Amino acid sequence: MANITIAIDCMGGDFGPSVTIPAIKYVLDNRTKEKPATGDTVDFQLFGQLENIESELNTLKFNDRTKISLHQSDDDVLMTDKPSLALKNKKSSSMRLALESVRDGRAHACVSAGNTGALMAVSRFVLKMLPGIDRPAIISALPTSKNGQVYLLDLGANVECNEKRLAQFAIMGNELCKGLDGVNSPKVGLLNVGEEEIKGSQKLRQAAALINKLDDVEYIGFVEGNQIFSGDYQVIVTDGFTGNNVLKASEGLSEFLLEKIKHAFQRNWWTKLIGLLAKPMLNLFKDEINPERYNGACLIGLRGVVIKSHGSANVHATVCAIEEAILQAKQKVPSKIRASLESAQINLQRVQ
Amino acid sequence: MANITIAIDCMGGDFGPSVTIPAIKYVLDNRTKEKPATGDTVDFQLFGQLENIESELNTLKFNDRTKISLHQSDDDVLMTDKPSLALKNKKSSSMRLALESVRDGRAHACVSAGNTGALMAVSRFVLKMLPGIDRPAIISALPTSKNGQVYLLDLGANVECNEKRLAQFAIMGNELCKGLDGVNSPKVGLLNVGEEEIKGSQKLRQAAALINKLDDVEYIGFVEGNQIFSGDYQVIVTDGFTGNNVLKASEGLSEFLLEKIKHAFQRNWWTKLIGLLAKPMLNLFKDEINPERYNGACLIGLRGVVIKSHGSANVHATVCAIEEAILQAKQKVPSKIRASLESAQINLQRVQ
Repeated sequence: MANITIAIDCMGGDFGPSVTIPAIKYVLDNRTKEKPATGDTVDFQLFGQLENIESELNTLKFNDRTKISLHQSDDDVLMTDKPSLALKNKKSSSMRLALESVRDGRAHACVSAGNTGALMAVSRFVLKMLPGIDRPAIISALPTSKNGQVYLLDLGANVECNEKRLAQFAIMGNELCKGLDGVNSPKVGLLNVGEEEIKGSQKLRQAAALINKLDDVEYIGFVEGNQIFSGDYQVIVTDGFTGNNVLKASEGLSEFLLEKIKHAFQRNWWTKLIGLLAKPMLNLFKDEINPERYNGACLIGLRGVVIKSHGSANVHATVCAIEEAILQAKQKVPSKIRASLESAQINLQRVQ
Repeated sequence: MANITIAIDCMGGDFGPSVTIPAIKYVLDNRTKEKPATGDTVDFQLFGQLENIESELNTLKFNDRTKISLHQSDDDVLMTDKPSLALKNKKSSSMRLALESVRDGRAHACVSAGNTGALMAVSRFVLKMLPGIDRPAIISALPTSKNGQVYLLDLGANVECNEKRLAQFAIMGNELCKGLDGVNSPKVGLLNVGEEEIKGSQKLRQAAALINKLDDVEYIGFVEGNQIFSGDYQVIVTDGFTGNNVLKASEGLSEFLLEKIKHAFQRNWWTKLIGLLAKPMLNLFKDEINPERYNGACLIGLRGVVIKSHGSANVHATVCAIEEAILQAKQKVPSKIRASLESAQINLQRVQ
């Protein structure tokens, strides 16, 4: 039985408390209903403008406050703030206070939908990096054809990466996959414009050579974009610019395709009737590919669990991010990675 | 009435003549059946190892040779060849001979599924660039939610691009969209990890400033990956590394989703029955998203039409690439772009 405390940056994202508070309520209500067999309990620290948070709590008739504590913040990190500004001038932001709670051991994980660059800079400053890691990367799991999942990193924390950083991503992705999914020897690929060794930039070929030298990483080679969802790889490494665009394009494409399939059944009364009969199957499909379900990426490489929720996340997506935080807090992901990193110390020295 | 001649690099791609020859036969057979109202005729120049080509022609009982001419090549450009090697040492390759036919006015367009880097280098050497353009870019149209399409470039010809090259892509994409789709003032976006002006690398912010200065380009701003398929933009500019990975990831995701939806209807006899009834609608959907349909990207910026087919293209996909070549040859795309480039000369000087 564990008691997990999650610190929430209630002001982050496009919608702030109007999304974060209902998501917290949903998680708590569902836990009360379900009474998890493990006996685990979860409570929340809410960081933000108390006036806004209170107003949202009242609207939702969120009266039982035994599982939440409120913490006033005096600044908001805006989506347009430069990371350096957020770091230097916004020392009482909801984002920063939530991260400090993790640093001080008062919370086990932090969830924020705020400015990604700022979250990375502040996390790095407040929580510090695991030994041997330069900067956090954003990592998330995506579904694959073979029913397993694939971890893709970096998804936007580092728009420019040298070959050493890419090799560090390979180590971290490898360790996360082993720790969370119990995969013994994840297959690791490096995203490129072709599988052939001569393809891509010099930096990428250098990264391939570095990753290839790592003893504990089963490096397969360059992998092309169309293989991300194939299930042939468990970890795919790329720079944050490419990863971010690949991930968001996939989200956009999923939405587009859901619209298209809806449209295909709306042409006339007959197709509408079949659509009605096919609804349970279509809903199953819809649920499986819904990007909201995959919301909640991890800022990996830090000494604490930080989950980044999508800036435009709705309540359902935010619930998924919170559940991911609870899972990683329970699993003590940073400790596992740290332990693995220590045993992989020789690897790290090679790529620093 | 026009007589269009297409030069085919029969040896390119993963499957060579076993895919290119059936595709040519399909296009010719269909044209004979359809008798196009325009009275346009199409014939083909087949470049490759004659022994292989003849063997394939015999297997297919391709006896009427009035619409095809065969041209022996002595080298093959391999998928693993460095572009510089293909350029210097393979002067009698099927790829090169097909391009020379376009250069010499014997063919109106060339189709190749060969090594992208080599195709770019050889095209550039043989056909030369349009005035004011440094290097070709690969551009292709993708479907969008709003029934229109969006042109994405570069898709892999230039893995690293400086700000000036990105601005040239904006001009070319803009002109292609105006010329082919008749869009008066295409909305142009620059792919980035966020819409805010401070996002992304310095190079990208410099590119945004350059594109913003172009008189004839309606530059909207940074665009995120999830907006590619939204229909809000008609042209999206990015470097070849990102574009290639976004495109291929989209192809991989489409295939993955088609599998998933098939699976959703295969759970039991009832879902299979509904699946049977829903088949016409599902096929409509499948056809719309089939990546094969969008095969046939253009190497834009050259003085001739060069269509790049996917290395792993099957017969259907190759047919689509050939049809794209016929369309662009008929529409005289390079002349249109050239005319537009001349009128946009002042734009070009600004970004060189």
